[in-house]
Amino acid sequence: MGGMTVAVVGLGLIGGSIAMALQGFEDCTVVGAVRSQRTYDLALERQVADRLTMDAAQAVREADVVWLCLPPQAILDFLAAHRDHFKPGSLVTDVCGVKTAIVEGARCLPDTVDFIGCHPMAGKEVSGVANAESDLFRGAHFILTPSGKNDPAHVALLERMAQYMGFRDVVRATPEEHDAIIAYTSQVMHVMAAAVCDDPDLFSCKGFEGGSFRDCTRVAALDVPLWTELFSLNAPALTRVIQTLEDNLRAYRETIQSGDRAALAEKLRHSSDRKRRMNFEGPPRGDQRGN
Amino acid sequence: MGGMTVAVVGLGLIGGSIAMALQGFEDCTVVGAVRSQRTYDLALERQVADRLTMDAAQAVREADVVWLCLPPQAILDFLAAHRDHFKPGSLVTDVCGVKTAIVEGARCLPDTVDFIGCHPMAGKEVSGVANAESDLFRGAHFILTPSGKNDPAHVALLERMAQYMGFRDVVRATPEEHDAIIAYTSQVMHVMAAAVCDDPDLFSCKGFEGGSFRDCTRVAALDVPLWTELFSLNAPALTRVIQTLEDNLRAYRETIQSGDRAALAEKLRHSSDRKRRMNFEGPPRGDQRGN
Repeated sequence: MGGMTVAVVGLGLIGGSIAMALQGFEDCTVVGAVRSQRTYDLALERQVADRLTMDAAQAVREADVVWLCLPPQAILDFLAAHRDHFKPGSLVTDVCGVKTAIVEGARCLPDTVDFIGCHPMAGKEVSGVANAESDLFRGAHFILTPSGKNDPAHVALLERMAQYMGFRDVVRATPEEHDAIIAYTSQVMHVMAAAVCDDPDLFSCKGFEGGSFRDCTRVAALDVPLWTELFSLNAPALTRVIQTLEDNLRAYRETIQSGDRAALAEKLRHSSDRKRRMNFEGPPRGDQRGN
Repeated sequence: MGGMTVAVVGLGLIGGSIAMALQGFEDCTVVGAVRSQRTYDLALERQVADRLTMDAAQAVREADVVWLCLPPQAILDFLAAHRDHFKPGSLVTDVCGVKTAIVEGARCLPDTVDFIGCHPMAGKEVSGVANAESDLFRGAHFILTPSGKNDPAHVALLERMAQYMGFRDVVRATPEEHDAIIAYTSQVMHVMAAAVCDDPDLFSCKGFEGGSFRDCTRVAALDVPLWTELFSLNAPALTRVIQTLEDNLRAYRETIQSGDRAALAEKLRHSSDRKRRMNFEGPPRGDQRGN
C-alpha cells in the first residue's frame, strides 16, 4: 500500500512545529496548507513540510489525516466550509485549547469522516512559523478526546504520532472534562499573568524582580485574538476558576491582615504540603531558581 | 596590611552560597558560623567556607565584614544578643527579604559598627547548605539599602562583593521602597502560587498541566517558617498588593462573564502590551516554553 498523506492546515507556531515533528513518521508525506504568501515563503525556507500548498480544499481532498492548526473560530469556519472536501475514511483532528465547542462544530462533517479533538499542551510566548521547532513538544502532555464512535485505528495512529513527535504521554478526557480542567491548569494562569501586569507598580519595579515574577508574567505576552476566543469559548468554567482563586487570595489576605502568625503558618503549611504532594514532573528546565 | 575576615553567620541555602561565592574574593578569609553539628559536617564536606566555627560570638569579634544569613526574627535576635561582640569599624549586612524591620532592629548596634541591609534576589525551592551553590546569584539583582550615615567604602565593598559573586547588577533603594516593591515582585507571587494550590482541582489535574502551571506553582513549595515571618513583617504592603490583584482578577472575570468579546480583547491587549513594554531581562533560562 502507498504512503499516508498528512495535511497540516495552518503553519503557525503549533502547526509548523507539528509539520516539522511529523517528518519521517512511518511512510507519511506532510503537506502544509497556508493562506499567505509570506507564511508560504517562510515555511519553504525553513523546510517545515515535505510539500506546501495554498489550496486547502485540494490538500484535504488528498489527505488521509488532517491536522487543523488554526485559532478556534477559524477551525469552526474551516470545518463548515470544507465539510464536503474531506476524503472519505480520513481522520480529522485539531490542536485547539478548547474542545467542547470544536467537537460540536465537527458534527457538521459527513459520517465518512472521523473527527478526534486533540490538545498538545505546549506553546511559547512567540508565534508564527518563524518560531516553530520540531522539538517543541518534548516532555509535554498530548490530550486526546475520543468518543466511542471513533475508529480505534485512528486513535492508535494519533497516539503513535504523539509519541513520534516527542510528547511525554497521551492523556484521554472527554471534551467537557478537558475544558473544565484546562480552565484551571492553563487559562487562569494566563489571566493571572495579565492581571499581575495591570498593577500600577509594573514599570517601577525593574531591578526588583526575581525568577518567580519572570516565570509568572511570561505568558502575559499572549496572542490577543487567540486567547480572546479561547477564554470566551470556555467562559463558564474559567469564571468559576477565577472566582475560586479570588476567594483563596482573599483568605490569604485576611489571614495576613489579622496578624495571626500561627494561622498564617498553618495556611502556608497546608498549601505547600499540597504542592509537594502534587510534585508535578515536567520537561527538564534549565534553570529552576529565583525567588 | 593583612587579609580581611568575612564571617557568614548561618550556612543555609543563601549563606552557604554566599560563603562559596565569596571564596577567592580579594584577600579575604571566609569563616562560616553555624549552630548545628549536622550543618557543620555538611559545610565541611562541601568546603563551603575557608574555616568553620560553632562560636558565633568569636566569629563576629574577628570579622571585618559580617553577613547575617538567618531568617528575619533570628537576625533581630542575633543583633540584640551580639550587639557588643561586633568588631569596631566592621561592616554588618544581612540577606533578609524584608528590610524596614531589619534596619530598625540594627539600630541597637553601637555607632562603631556600620550596618547596611541587603537583599540578594535569588533562591531555590529547596533549602539548606546541601543545596548551596557558588553560582546561585548569576544574573540576579543585588539590592542594597544604604543610608547617608554609612561609610562609602563599605557600600563600595558590598558592590565589589556582589559583582564578584556573579550578580547581574546592584540596585539601591530605601528599606521602605524595597519592602513596598518586593511585596509585588516576590511576596505576592508566593501567595498566588499557594492560593492556586488550594484549588480543589489540584490533584485531579495531573496530565493537563503545561509550563505556565509548573512555573507559577513552583514557589508554592516554600519554607513555611521563613515566609510566615517575611509576610508578617511586611503585612501592610503585601495586603495592598493582594487586594489590587483580587481587583484585577475580578475585572477579568466580569469581562469574561459579560460575553463582550471586544471588551475582553481590549483588556488583553492592554495587559499584554504592558508586559511587552516591560520586557524584563532575566538570567538565561534553559527553556521558556509551555502554555
